[in-house]
Amino acid sequence: MDNCLNNVFIKDIMTTNVVYVNPKEGVIKAFEILLKHKISCLPVVDEDKEIVGIVTTTDIGHNLIEDRYTLDTKISDVMTRDVITIGPDEPIINAIKKMDKYGPKGEIINQLPVVDDNNRLIGIVSDGDIIRILSKCLK
Amino acid sequence: MDNCLNNVFIKDIMTTNVVYVNPKEGVIKAFEILLKHKISCLPVVDEDKEIVGIVTTTDIGHNLIEDRYTLDTKISDVMTRDVITIGPDEPIINAIKKMDKYGPKGEIINQLPVVDDNNRLIGIVSDGDIIRILSKCLK
Repeated sequence: MDNCLNNVFIKDIMTTNVVYVNPKEGVIKAFEILLKHKISCLPVVDEDKEIVGIVTTTDIGHNLIEDRYTLDTKISDVMTRDVITIGPDEPIINAIKKMDKYGPKGEIINQLPVVDDNNRLIGIVSDGDIIRILSKCLK
Repeated sequence: MDNCLNNVFIKDIMTTNVVYVNPKEGVIKAFEILLKHKISCLPVVDEDKEIVGIVTTTDIGHNLIEDRYTLDTKISDVMTRDVITIGPDEPIINAIKKMDKYGPKGEIINQLPVVDDNNRLIGIVSDGDIIRILSKCLK
C-alpha cells in the first residue's frame, strides 16, 4: 500500500478537462454551472488562466438559501482567494496531507486545483480520485 | 499504513449526528435541507429509521436546473433505492472498496450510510472522513 501510494503522482489521477469560471461572472451563473456539470467546486481563473480563487456548490448554495447574495453579487466578491493547490509531479500522499491540513474547521478540502510552475490551472484532483486509486492499491 | 488501515473501523470515524429525510417530503424541501446543512447527500428513512433510499445535492440540483421536477415531485419519486451501506464494525478498507466498486459510471460514491443489523441508520461515513484518517495514518 505505502509503496503504491508513493509511486502514484497527481498527474496520473487528475482530471484535465476542468470547468472553470471568470471572477467577473455572477454567483447565480456560477451556481448554475456547478449544478449543470454536477461538480462540487469551480476554480476561478484570470485571462492568463492563473488561478485567483475557488467557489464551491455548498458555500454558494448555503449563502443563496440564506439570502446573503443579490443578483449583482460577483464571484470575485465571494470566492475563496487563499487557494490550496498542488503540482502535477507531487505524490498523491501530498494531496492527502494537504486536504486534511488546510480544510476549514475540521473539514477536509475535497478538491485541489493542479497548477503548473506559473500558477496556471492544468487539472483538478478530488478526494474521490484518491479513494479510487486507494481501492486499486488495495487489490 | 496497511496496519493502520486494518485497525480503524467505520464506527471510529463515522458521523453519528446524521441529517435524514422522509420519502414523502418534496424534492425542493430536500434541496433546501442539503444546502442549509452544507451536506452532499441525504439518507431517506421510513418511520422505523430503516434506510429506504438516498438523494444527493448534485443529482437534485442538476435535475432542478434542467427543469425535470415540479413543485409536487416527492423524494420517493426520485431517490436512489439501491443504497450501498456499511456496518459499524467493518474496517475502513471495506468502505474504500465499496465507494470505488459501486459508484456510477466510473465515479465513486462519496458517502456511505452506516446501518445496524436491522438496516436502521446509525451514522454516515464520507470519502472526506477516509482522507482524514489516511492523513493521520501517514504521520
